Amino acid sequence: MNAVANEPWGIDNLPYGVADTPDGGAQVVTRLGDDVIELATLAKSDNQRKWARTFGQSSLNPFIAQGHSSWKAAREWLHAILQDDARKDLVAAATKPLGDVDLHLPVDIADYVDFYASEQHATNVGSIFRPDSDALTPNWKHLPIGYHGRSGTVVVSGTDIVRPVGQRKGKDDPAPVFGPCVRLDIEAEVGFVVGGETEVGTRVSVDEAGEHLFGVALFNDWSARDIQAWEYVPLGPFLGKSFASSLSPWITPMAALEAAKAALPTQDPKPLDYLQGEGAFGLDLELEVRLNDTVISRPPYKEMYWSPAQMLAHLTVNGASLRDGDLFASGTVSGDSPDQCGSLLELAWSGTRPVKLSDGTTRSFLQDGDTVTITATAPTAGGGRLALGEVTGRVTPAREG
Amino acid sequence: MNAVANEPWGIDNLPYGVADTPDGGAQVVTRLGDDVIELATLAKSDNQRKWARTFGQSSLNPFIAQGHSSWKAAREWLHAILQDDARKDLVAAATKPLGDVDLHLPVDIADYVDFYASEQHATNVGSIFRPDSDALTPNWKHLPIGYHGRSGTVVVSGTDIVRPVGQRKGKDDPAPVFGPCVRLDIEAEVGFVVGGETEVGTRVSVDEAGEHLFGVALFNDWSARDIQAWEYVPLGPFLGKSFASSLSPWITPMAALEAAKAALPTQDPKPLDYLQGEGAFGLDLELEVRLNDTVISRPPYKEMYWSPAQMLAHLTVNGASLRDGDLFASGTVSGDSPDQCGSLLELAWSGTRPVKLSDGTTRSFLQDGDTVTITATAPTAGGGRLALGEVTGRVTPAREG
Repeated sequence: MNAVANEPWGIDNLPYGVADTPDGGAQVVTRLGDDVIELATLAKSDNQRKWARTFGQSSLNPFIAQGHSSWKAAREWLHAILQDDARKDLVAAATKPLGDVDLHLPVDIADYVDFYASEQHATNVGSIFRPDSDALTPNWKHLPIGYHGRSGTVVVSGTDIVRPVGQRKGKDDPAPVFGPCVRLDIEAEVGFVVGGETEVGTRVSVDEAGEHLFGVALFNDWSARDIQAWEYVPLGPFLGKSFASSLSPWITPMAALEAAKAALPTQDPKPLDYLQGEGAFGLDLELEVRLNDTVISRPPYKEMYWSPAQMLAHLTVNGASLRDGDLFASGTVSGDSPDQCGSLLELAWSGTRPVKLSDGTTRSFLQDGDTVTITATAPTAGGGRLALGEVTGRVTPAREG
Repeated sequence: MNAVANEPWGIDNLPYGVADTPDGGAQVVTRLGDDVIELATLAKSDNQRKWARTFGQSSLNPFIAQGHSSWKAAREWLHAILQDDARKDLVAAATKPLGDVDLHLPVDIADYVDFYASEQHATNVGSIFRPDSDALTPNWKHLPIGYHGRSGTVVVSGTDIVRPVGQRKGKDDPAPVFGPCVRLDIEAEVGFVVGGETEVGTRVSVDEAGEHLFGVALFNDWSARDIQAWEYVPLGPFLGKSFASSLSPWITPMAALEAAKAALPTQDPKPLDYLQGEGAFGLDLELEVRLNDTVISRPPYKEMYWSPAQMLAHLTVNGASLRDGDLFASGTVSGDSPDQCGSLLELAWSGTRPVKLSDGTTRSFLQDGDTVTITATAPTAGGGRLALGEVTGRVTPAREG
């Protein structure tokens, strides 16, 4: 047990996940230090019927569906019981070593939207994909660009990523060719899990967004750049993305990130009114991307141009409803310097300056067998840093036939 | 009762829907003539426990999840009992007038993908949106272009459509403006409901697609052309589409459309091998689009360039998995002649030749209060035509605030 603050997995962190239980069921868990605490078990022994029911489920959705006041109340109960000497035996009885627990995809994802909120990333990708045009499209600074992705292929961290196959066509190829992706990439992103259903035809303002933002999780939006480049005009990315996206098993509550709230970069031109409000803050998350044993990038989330609240307000401004378990991701997090980019496309600048790994090899894109792991930390109120749950995945060869 | 063939709602049609029951539950129903037959009620009285359980549900998903052999067996049971004099009292007891029944969204939609499979539509839209480029993008004849849409805002036919608000920017506007959509449009499409889950990393071939195509339903992909035009470069349509899409309450089984199978238009250049196979047929569906009291278009589905099986094979070729209840739509159905287009954008050619209605008014785009209804028929084996369930919706004013 480690009920102290300002540590990576201290009492001021308390992310939520979902784990198997020995009886074949599943329940919601949290993490403290290197231990996992089974929350349904704990709630039952503490005679908390509501929490026992809420957390005795195979996904976070029933909890998420209870809304913001319930998220707050659950965290208060947890803070109290985990620091209460009189109940420490109950806590001990619900505690297991992290290594003994099998963590699942924590959320039944309803709709998944991917944004494109880093100016540096959008500029880099625009320069690489559309060298003859302005790097940023004319709309970029007026709205957080986003598109829907495939929620059925969001997989939990640790799931192997099968190299996708598909069509690609180089500029000078006379016709498209078919085969395994040859430009397989990562996108280091931050995902936001949404709760509090709304009706079709209504919208969520920037200042209401906080009521609907349940938590954050690191996210890797694996990307097949060759497939994407050939398919994406005019209706956007499709198969270049939809083969798999990896989500951390740990959802960090927004309440744990109060000290991480930060000012956004200056937005110029000033966005339209519906994108403004006090809820439009950034987040000071420091990401780290490892490829096998080498740290290849340290993307700074606080440089992201668009706020999570602005993304949510934009997503719903047309009357699109929210469902519990909706997920939206930030888009690739890239900072100003070349070693702060969240994709290999940028880090190796479309293959022109391969990234060096500690084993002496280089990468322009991913090879079979490569493992990519994204971690992150955020400041705590007391001056320490808490950890977000990592997201990792290993590339396996394309299947035949 | 009307257990004869070759009529709009005869014995060779038998679509599936989901209706309320008086006890507050819901069950799967079919339609025969102007009657609805409650299938859980019927199965129970016929001592068919499996069908009673399958159909005693609030969505078609449990039935869809049983797979192709079960879809076939259910249809055989239905054909037999509906033509069996000895059991006609059971059928009568499960029958209600269509007008007495409240039909729901029949499927819990997992992922929703919208394709762009009409060459005429893609050519028309390309000409209007990108007048300075080739109308068809270079990839168009090599792959069925598609993108993911918002499954949470697919609503059942009859649901009012609230006019969306959002950003738009005309070519000569100095900055984007905000307000209700001023170019609200329809897209007359055919949706395909998918069943038979697959694993991430595997794919479904053109010839396997038939095992996964459960049925078809008319679909209206309402579109805010002004919002879409400003937002869609580079990541595709988002808020211009995600406010609402309407689905018919009736899913017509693929088995009812055997006589509607038709050759595709010639595909030149020949698509890559993974897009070829005997499963790559078209469908001879004749659509009709009514705006208020005026038939404004008769789009011919059989002219669609890409087959449903090709769309499904493409959707999964990268290893994207299928879930029960996935929905993909064809994209706007437009034929060769100007009165065969499935959108007002094309019918009124971006406002330059407004469509005349029978009340003497004209439309370039939809006005508040307008009702759009899409119907369709398909040939039966005996030379008649069966009906697909209509999809309808009325436009209501944008909400304030």
